[in-house]
Amino acid sequence: MTRAPLDVETSVPAELYADVQQFYAWQMGLLDDGKPDEWADTFTVDAVFGEPGKAGGFSGREAIRASVRERAERLAAEGVVIRHWFSMLVVRPQPDGTLRTRNYALTLATPRGGALTVRGHAVCHDHLVPDGDRLLVAHRLILPDGR
Amino acid sequence: MTRAPLDVETSVPAELYADVQQFYAWQMGLLDDGKPDEWADTFTVDAVFGEPGKAGGFSGREAIRASVRERAERLAAEGVVIRHWFSMLVVRPQPDGTLRTRNYALTLATPRGGALTVRGHAVCHDHLVPDGDRLLVAHRLILPDGR
Amino acid sequence: MTRAPLDVETSVPAELYADVQQFYAWQMGLLDDGKPDEWADTFTVDAVFGEPGKAGGFSGREAIRASVRERAERLAAEGVVIRHWFSMLVVRPQPDGTLRTRNYALTLATPRGGALTVRGHAVCHDHLVPDGDRLLVAHRLILPDGR
Repeated sequence: MTRAPLDVETSVPAELYADVQQFYAWQMGLLDDGKPDEWADTFTVDAVFGEPGKAGGFSGREAIRASVRERAERLAAEGVVIRHWFSMLVVRPQPDGTLRTRNYALTLATPRGGALTVRGHAVCHDHLVPDGDRLLVAHRLILPDGR
Repeated sequence: MTRAPLDVETSVPAELYADVQQFYAWQMGLLDDGKPDEWADTFTVDAVFGEPGKAGGFSGREAIRASVRERAERLAAEGVVIRHWFSMLVVRPQPDGTLRTRNYALTLATPRGGALTVRGHAVCHDHLVPDGDRLLVAHRLILPDGR
Repeated sequence: MTRAPLDVETSVPAELYADVQQFYAWQMGLLDDGKPDEWADTFTVDAVFGEPGKAGGFSGREAIRASVRERAERLAAEGVVIRHWFSMLVVRPQPDGTLRTRNYALTLATPRGGALTVRGHAVCHDHLVPDGDRLLVAHRLILPDGR
């Protein structure tokens, strides 16, 4: 066996790991709290968002913004609160200073006055790029389980 | 755009982030493992616990203790195991050295010999204060989704 | 009250905590992605895997490997994707340099073209041993809620 389960490929320093954990807690909180504009601003101008089986994806921050605004209005009208849990984070630094990440993603929905349902599970693959002191999503690929 | 998605407001150092993550893993484990006294001791003497729609909340560690003891006895009698998952943690240090935190909170229930049910999702807003080497909860506000 | 809720027993340094978080994200990802051999290699040669109520457990990496290979083939044949979420991690360093850990573990299943079901919740107690730059599981005890 020449594999190295906890080698440099699989473990990044705590500062980086905690930064990326906090990025996702904050980013997905924006979406769940109904702040589509702030959420769209966490993507690069030319970001690509792909989710096979759902609308085919979006190219560019403004297309992502338009889509997520529409989604926020629909959910508000329906009175449904969605929560996105990202966890089981793996971070892979790239030679060019960008990051590839993998998250398990669980989507939970609660209607006003109703019971929670677990909508589904996906694996989220991101390409994150530093932009000054912040991170931006340059590419997001959502792969839902069961497809 | 003048927003800073990963600025000092949203990202705290890894040591602090890991400490708070560990605090919640340990604190909520006490509750789930049926240790109401140890759990109550993680609150300040004059702590306030609020959960709109459920009993109106409690003021003071001893009121919290009485409530959680009663809850532990009831669950033990019913043979139900409850698990609280806290995640998607955001930590906001305050100028006075205290911490404001936000957690996503998922409640799972499993009866003896029965199947798991997801009870519901809430957002937990805490005010944590340092007390020597430890953290204590001075204020907890649970906001259930769908209310 | 002489208890110390966030003393050295409950909080480990961020570097260690992040390493162990990453170990589990990566390890359980191997299992969920259908890589039984890589997963088995994260256990020591003489590892013990116990799960009361399910087959009685396994002794030794090769017995674990045989079991997990069979499981992977069965799930692939059934077209079911399983996801294991580990969270609420507590790490307890031992005097001999090994680690005792506790994770909350949630098992989610999604059949091809079907809806997600939450299979159940357990508490996972591990004994981790360093092996060069990596960690290996020397003992895993899975305690399912409701048993």
